[in-house]
Amino acid sequence: MADKILRINMSDLSTKVEDVPEAWMGHGGRGLTSTIVAAEVVPTCHPLGEDNKLVFAPGLLSGTPAANSGRLSCGAKSPLTGTIKEANAGGTSAQMLAKLGVKAMIIEGKPADGAKWYSLHIDENGATIKEETEVIGLGNFETVQKLNDRLGAKVGVITIGPAGEMLMAAANISVKDPDSHMRSNGRGGLGAVMGSKKIKFISIEPTTNKVDIADVEAFRTANRAFAKSLVDNPISQALGQYGTNVLVNIINESGGIPTKNFTTGQFEGHESISGETMYDTIVARGGKPKHNCHAGCVIQCSQVYADAKGGYRTSGFEYETIWAFGADCCIENLDQIAEADNILDDLGLDSIEIPVAFAVAMEGGVLNFGDGDGVLRILNEDVAKGTPLGRIIGNGAGSVGKAYGVTRVPVVKNQAIPAYDPRAIKGIGITYATSTQGADHTMGYTIATNILGVGGSLDPLSKEGQVELSRNLQIATAAIDSTGMCLFIAFAALDDATCLPALIDLINARFGIGLTADDVTNLGKYILKTEHEFNLAAGFTNKDDRLPEFFSKEPIAPHNVVWDITDEAIDSFWDF
Amino acid sequence: MADKILRINMSDLSTKVEDVPEAWMGHGGRGLTSTIVAAEVVPTCHPLGEDNKLVFAPGLLSGTPAANSGRLSCGAKSPLTGTIKEANAGGTSAQMLAKLGVKAMIIEGKPADGAKWYSLHIDENGATIKEETEVIGLGNFETVQKLNDRLGAKVGVITIGPAGEMLMAAANISVKDPDSHMRSNGRGGLGAVMGSKKIKFISIEPTTNKVDIADVEAFRTANRAFAKSLVDNPISQALGQYGTNVLVNIINESGGIPTKNFTTGQFEGHESISGETMYDTIVARGGKPKHNCHAGCVIQCSQVYADAKGGYRTSGFEYETIWAFGADCCIENLDQIAEADNILDDLGLDSIEIPVAFAVAMEGGVLNFGDGDGVLRILNEDVAKGTPLGRIIGNGAGSVGKAYGVTRVPVVKNQAIPAYDPRAIKGIGITYATSTQGADHTMGYTIATNILGVGGSLDPLSKEGQVELSRNLQIATAAIDSTGMCLFIAFAALDDATCLPALIDLINARFGIGLTADDVTNLGKYILKTEHEFNLAAGFTNKDDRLPEFFSKEPIAPHNVVWDITDEAIDSFWDF
Repeated sequence: MADKILRINMSDLSTKVEDVPEAWMGHGGRGLTSTIVAAEVVPTCHPLGEDNKLVFAPGLLSGTPAANSGRLSCGAKSPLTGTIKEANAGGTSAQMLAKLGVKAMIIEGKPADGAKWYSLHIDENGATIKEETEVIGLGNFETVQKLNDRLGAKVGVITIGPAGEMLMAAANISVKDPDSHMRSNGRGGLGAVMGSKKIKFISIEPTTNKVDIADVEAFRTANRAFAKSLVDNPISQALGQYGTNVLVNIINESGGIPTKNFTTGQFEGHESISGETMYDTIVARGGKPKHNCHAGCVIQCSQVYADAKGGYRTSGFEYETIWAFGADCCIENLDQIAEADNILDDLGLDSIEIPVAFAVAMEGGVLNFGDGDGVLRILNEDVAKGTPLGRIIGNGAGSVGKAYGVTRVPVVKNQAIPAYDPRAIKGIGITYATSTQGADHTMGYTIATNILGVGGSLDPLSKEGQVELSRNLQIATAAIDSTGMCLFIAFAALDDATCLPALIDLINARFGIGLTADDVTNLGKYILKTEHEFNLAAGFTNKDDRLPEFFSKEPIAPHNVVWDITDEAIDSFWDF
Repeated sequence: MADKILRINMSDLSTKVEDVPEAWMGHGGRGLTSTIVAAEVVPTCHPLGEDNKLVFAPGLLSGTPAANSGRLSCGAKSPLTGTIKEANAGGTSAQMLAKLGVKAMIIEGKPADGAKWYSLHIDENGATIKEETEVIGLGNFETVQKLNDRLGAKVGVITIGPAGEMLMAAANISVKDPDSHMRSNGRGGLGAVMGSKKIKFISIEPTTNKVDIADVEAFRTANRAFAKSLVDNPISQALGQYGTNVLVNIINESGGIPTKNFTTGQFEGHESISGETMYDTIVARGGKPKHNCHAGCVIQCSQVYADAKGGYRTSGFEYETIWAFGADCCIENLDQIAEADNILDDLGLDSIEIPVAFAVAMEGGVLNFGDGDGVLRILNEDVAKGTPLGRIIGNGAGSVGKAYGVTRVPVVKNQAIPAYDPRAIKGIGITYATSTQGADHTMGYTIATNILGVGGSLDPLSKEGQVELSRNLQIATAAIDSTGMCLFIAFAALDDATCLPALIDLINARFGIGLTADDVTNLGKYILKTEHEFNLAAGFTNKDDRLPEFFSKEPIAPHNVVWDITDEAIDSFWDF
């Protein structure tokens, strides 16, 4: 069926089906959400006000049989950062929306009377708004279970947890995966934007429709080459075995694993939380070391972490979360970290922002470093219930820093810096500083080249070449984020000459067009510039493209290095 | 004795006496604090970090017999707004410092070990740093009492309360007045900067020194004319009788008294909190309707508000505080408001920022509008003790808005908008938007001309002429804030042709120079531009010179008007 735009107005509770404007036709995923947000959202608006818009878009290849193409992009002005924001997630919704011909959903306005909650249901005819009461206040797991019961196990679900209902700035949007667990549009508080629109969940009708493919044979050929490239890649294989948590020992060895609220670069307890330990624990307990977050994934970096009795504890248990509760908060107990991750999945909170916020709270004297029981207690008793302390933490690391007068607060544009210290791995510092989205490793993952030797090799401690590395990766990432592809295809794309041409062939076969590699690069550049212009119009300047001052003042062990890339070098990022 | 600069380094606990640099010689008060902050503070630094500096400066005429010249300026980068900040207060310290030849005190650095607290003692020889334990954690009243006991009743005291110790962004700095009560460098969280330096108080040795006056006879003549102009002015007289709270009925009548968190422009309960009611209550209970906050004040707008038994309840009980707890929080009980004001004086918190924060908390569901008991309970049980809720409120209205997801948050540059609604009194909206300090009525008090008919008359509801009005007043205010004069001399200066020449004669006689009215205007322009450039270097743009969007969307009764001055008109403020 023909692609369409669904426009949902929560001020007057109306919905419309619109044709796709010419200018949006070549876009998908992040490219489309950022194009729409830039075109329709007043850059200076209040992120939780009626002028913000929440935009969902499957990627260009979502809904097709292309491997790893099931990511759903979500965009808006972020209540955490004040910048434009795109966050993407796996799960089943991107493919279901694409098969229904939904190129994008634009949710605008907000009910003048904030007393009622609503749901959206998406099917072939468009969107239907209904008042909702049953699942209001419930966690994500129970919400999904009740919706499976109500609408059938195959229904697609996009939902917010209690954190989004309470408008916490670290609230995420959760997407049901094939096992009815959660994948997250994690960063930047998009769940609070959905909460401000008074939408608890979006359900998607299962369909037998297929996405139109212009040249089926060419598509099949390209997909075989593409999938083989992914499967053969050694980093894909490591991700499949240990998950992203394979990185604990690697980043610890590099001296760049931020520990005890970013005061040192190695964590003594790293073995207790490493990917290897996690793998052994999962196997011993009968969990699943491999798991895919969406149909068609051939990397399977997810896993099901089991508790001591073999029951489900958490999945999608990522390095950055384990690092943040582990090294950054000094919690050496993987079971406690898994329980915390599960609570965050249920409440609908960013599992990077919140543990980094806890580390700042530990420095501020709220609880002691290493106090895993304290973290679990505060999550259950404060964050879940929206007490004042829960709201301080639920609003992220910057919020905690302000509440307790802490000056060592690892944020850029108020978003928590993740699991790679920019003093010891300088390329990622450029990404943190310049990303249009606040500190976010996924926006230009220089760890690939700085540490993993993918796409070449660049000394992480050198000042040379880091801006170029980050720029090239940020451009490529923006393009990949438009395809619906998981970012982890980048390892193969950077190292295997057959991968990127196969990806471009997939897009060309899907739409019957003739994109070149240059077109893809230009798409990435267009997205970054569109996002950057939005931010400038919102009042951001190059002064916001800076790391917190403590990185320049406090050397980090074991290399005893500071952040020493000049402001001028950072600003040259935008020279393209 | 020759003027000097005291430089106190809290990183190495050293002090120095420095000559006054040539470039600083013509400056005092705000002109000097802003010049020093702009010259020495990294604009992008963390306000609570070692690179911020806290600068105190008496005005150009402080310490002389000039009427109303006892204001002490304090400047730094603000932890509340992130902008440059100057706040000034009465009390005895400005005159004492001036008599000791202290042109400015610059407090820089911070102790690496944050465990210890210190005091400064200032005498003829400079500053002495001592470790302090006795008064740590105490409120301002008890601190001043203990220091009077320790150092003699005439000692000058500049102190922070528990709020400053806890680094709350609305913490003020308190200055002892002649009756050992508190006057406040109120806005922008300068108390948190002092707390970050680990200085609990600054004591000042009494002296019999006199300030040098170049032409004593000319000074006397000018002072007689100046004081007569102040005393004869009808607004001075109204301020003497009813205090600033004379404004409740006037601003209510104008339809511009923001009520119930800025949702309407008149307060039904206005009679219960008016200046007239306050005066009658004070007289009936045996309080003092008139009181001066520093020696030499001939206006005496302060008062001592007595409790039902005739005991001291509060002083310096200002319209803006009474408005904020009264109309904005809908509390109709003047005794409760006085008690709240007294608690804020004791804790050392801005009595505009905090009640505006309470009104936002009421909208956010933390307590009900009108719940005076709830306000007192939260002040005593939460704010005083630094609980999470106390910290949310102690960090101001913007902090409360973020914690509870409220979108109607009346702040500019994160500082609470005071007692005059910019929709109904448009000139003051220009001041809020463009002030270098965040929303602050005292920076360009257009109420004079929009409402009181002082300095001419300009329809408060008209869009015409408001930018020019605010600009002229902001320039004049910056100059007045440099003299050590109370801002309330402006009413006489605007309406009596003898006042401003007499003030200029005072300055000329003090220093043996020949300033003209143009020189004074140029001084004001220089100060505003210096402050503005600091803010631009800190990352502010014209996008920060805006009122919150709800002012443009929600009409306010009774005039049913919105904020409708264009961005272009606002930006033209800086065309000078």
